Amino acid sequence: METNNLLKQISFIKEIDKLKYIQRKTKLFDSNRHENDAEHSWHLAMMTIVLGEHADQPIDVLKVLKMVLIHDIVEIDAGDTFIYDTLKNHVNTEEELKAANRIFGLLPKPQADEFIAIWKEFEDGLTEEAKFAKAMDRFQPLLQNISNKGGTWTEFNLPYQKVYDKKEAIKNGSTTIWEYSETLINEKVEKGILIK
Amino acid sequence: METNNLLKQISFIKEIDKLKYIQRKTKLFDSNRHENDAEHSWHLAMMTIVLGEHADQPIDVLKVLKMVLIHDIVEIDAGDTFIYDTLKNHVNTEEELKAANRIFGLLPKPQADEFIAIWKEFEDGLTEEAKFAKAMDRFQPLLQNISNKGGTWTEFNLPYQKVYDKKEAIKNGSTTIWEYSETLINEKVEKGILIK
Repeated sequence: METNNLLKQISFIKEIDKLKYIQRKTKLFDSNRHENDAEHSWHLAMMTIVLGEHADQPIDVLKVLKMVLIHDIVEIDAGDTFIYDTLKNHVNTEEELKAANRIFGLLPKPQADEFIAIWKEFEDGLTEEAKFAKAMDRFQPLLQNISNKGGTWTEFNLPYQKVYDKKEAIKNGSTTIWEYSETLINEKVEKGILIK
Repeated sequence: METNNLLKQISFIKEIDKLKYIQRKTKLFDSNRHENDAEHSWHLAMMTIVLGEHADQPIDVLKVLKMVLIHDIVEIDAGDTFIYDTLKNHVNTEEELKAANRIFGLLPKPQADEFIAIWKEFEDGLTEEAKFAKAMDRFQPLLQNISNKGGTWTEFNLPYQKVYDKKEAIKNGSTTIWEYSETLINEKVEKGILIK
């Protein structure tokens, strides 16, 4: 049984290597090089450890770590959806659910069920852990865009209000980080990079 | 105070983006593309969550996650040392200690102290958490080399015994994973990829 579990777990570990090929729209700090989903997930995990103290409500850090580490794995099948894409809604598409069932389904049943539940909890964004995980997921590309003279905001001509609306999700996780984010966004308005 | 902490934490978060540029010797699964340290660290974190049940002794999973997420950050300054490099010993070099002090030192003092302590604990490899984290760090490139027809073992003409000796660290963390690793190594001997 133990060996049987191990073999299933190893097939999952091999499969998720593909996350390293999924390219995001955002670029590394002060850089022209696109980030991939595995690097992004590592960065969010580091941010969770480092910034956890700024969560408005007590959070289970281990659970948030699991969320940010696995949150993009469905993109191996479903691809990366740009957050400002208006045609395709990112939240729990049929395609992503199918991907979750296939990829997490490689694991032994109890583990597969746990991972699918954690992924859904993240997508729903209702628990304190999901709110903080989503705050990290919004805050990281904000920092990257700031360091890249507007980054994807400039590249895709995004207006202030659209950016502000998406980034407001940070407020649900941490008032401190949100207030700092607001300052950064407003500075970009003053510099004419985000148009009000 | 809170904002002061946040600013220090953000300068650390920006700095560690550089881990995405540190190239390892090993390559992705079934691939010719080198892996970078950030991708590698994410993969070890996933393996920790997935394989934790195979640890011989009870482990604090959150602590192991912190270890594997930060274990290579010193390489931003010190560079990646190939594990089979005979001229340079990887363990706690002066250079790495200096790097740890500089990079983790960007964080607020209590957090810097915690991260440096966790990194040292990993390097010393004496606690159950450090043993399991090191087992993951040895097991991942083993799986990659197996999938790449010998990978770095073939590329650098490494003999069986040298590989076996390094991989034996897996045994300190998990008997189950070690027994499986031994089988994989022996198969490569039979196929003439590792020479006894």
